[in-house]
Amino acid sequence: MKLYSYWRSSAAYRVRIALNLKQLSFETIPVHLLKDGGQQHSAEYQQLNPNQLVPTYVDAEFSLNQSLAIIEYLDEMYPEPALLPEDPAAKAQVRSLALDIACDIHPLNNLRVLQYLTGPLALNDDQKTEWIHHWLHTGFSALEQRLQTTAGEFCYGDNITLADLCLVPQMYNALRFKLDTLEYPTISRIYHHCQQLAGFALAAPEQQSDAQV
Amino acid sequence: MKLYSYWRSSAAYRVRIALNLKQLSFETIPVHLLKDGGQQHSAEYQQLNPNQLVPTYVDAEFSLNQSLAIIEYLDEMYPEPALLPEDPAAKAQVRSLALDIACDIHPLNNLRVLQYLTGPLALNDDQKTEWIHHWLHTGFSALEQRLQTTAGEFCYGDNITLADLCLVPQMYNALRFKLDTLEYPTISRIYHHCQQLAGFALAAPEQQSDAQV
Repeated sequence: MKLYSYWRSSAAYRVRIALNLKQLSFETIPVHLLKDGGQQHSAEYQQLNPNQLVPTYVDAEFSLNQSLAIIEYLDEMYPEPALLPEDPAAKAQVRSLALDIACDIHPLNNLRVLQYLTGPLALNDDQKTEWIHHWLHTGFSALEQRLQTTAGEFCYGDNITLADLCLVPQMYNALRFKLDTLEYPTISRIYHHCQQLAGFALAAPEQQSDAQV
Repeated sequence: MKLYSYWRSSAAYRVRIALNLKQLSFETIPVHLLKDGGQQHSAEYQQLNPNQLVPTYVDAEFSLNQSLAIIEYLDEMYPEPALLPEDPAAKAQVRSLALDIACDIHPLNNLRVLQYLTGPLALNDDQKTEWIHHWLHTGFSALEQRLQTTAGEFCYGDNITLADLCLVPQMYNALRFKLDTLEYPTISRIYHHCQQLAGFALAAPEQQSDAQV
């Protein structure tokens, strides 16, 4: 299996964690989001992924975009360790925590949005940072509140779930943008705990072959 | 069961379609997103849904936010008619089409984002409309391309799926914002086809008790 990935992409990072936790070996194909005007916009890549975003997962069967769809697919095909609880109500809460991040935080601070802010809208650096922090604080405040009732060692109880696979890349992103995370002790605790685990550590941006550090 | 809803919310609209298709009776509790500075920000609602967004689903078991998590939960608890194919690869493609809309189009044109554009960023009406159209065109171009290989009568083959429940509210939204949809014949065809079906028609914003037309 292959993963079209960019080291700093949060969405690709989520899938890398899933692949590692399930001990699946995969080939990383780097798509540089900034080089050549963005390699994700090349005709070849667009054919594979019309959204011109990373990641794209490719196996013998098909190619698939959207990180959460990829992770749910992997979880069905390679059930160990499970990334979703079996109980429907618990599963729903995990999906909802994951979507809190994947729908309501991440898309607003994605590269293409920041490029629109500084390009067509001509925002300056301070305005761009305010935008980024605004949506991170909005989302993290809600997430921190929800975790008070759902979290154990991880986002939902004491097992790693899909929600943790979303939390870690989002927190990585927040730290990269120098967000003050003192108000989010539960998010921070889960983030640091996950970082100790090999599946998460090996998926980190700096560990990727295309990392520029 | 109860659904905290706002007539024009795309995300609530998706869940209303699912409830109708599964012939589940539910009580709608309107949350007016514009009145009283936004009723979704009230202390009472925030307790129920820390994200301060609609919809929220409440049944005897629990309360749940995030439209896609709610629909997947309903699909597990009330399997007829199924909104996802059984085959894992097909299911993954349907989820991915749904997420193309739910992650990569809808969040960027949501009310709170438009309020940030015209509030803190002081964009004028033309700039706001350009923003809305930019993300709709970006997302619809990709979706139209993907549908060339997946669509039959509906987004994925000839059965209604989660993807159609996302497409219809998004197209409703696009038409409301006067997007030129001529370039998207497949999206338009599926939209108009769905509108003929009772489950979709009864979920339409104008049919809701809190509609202001």
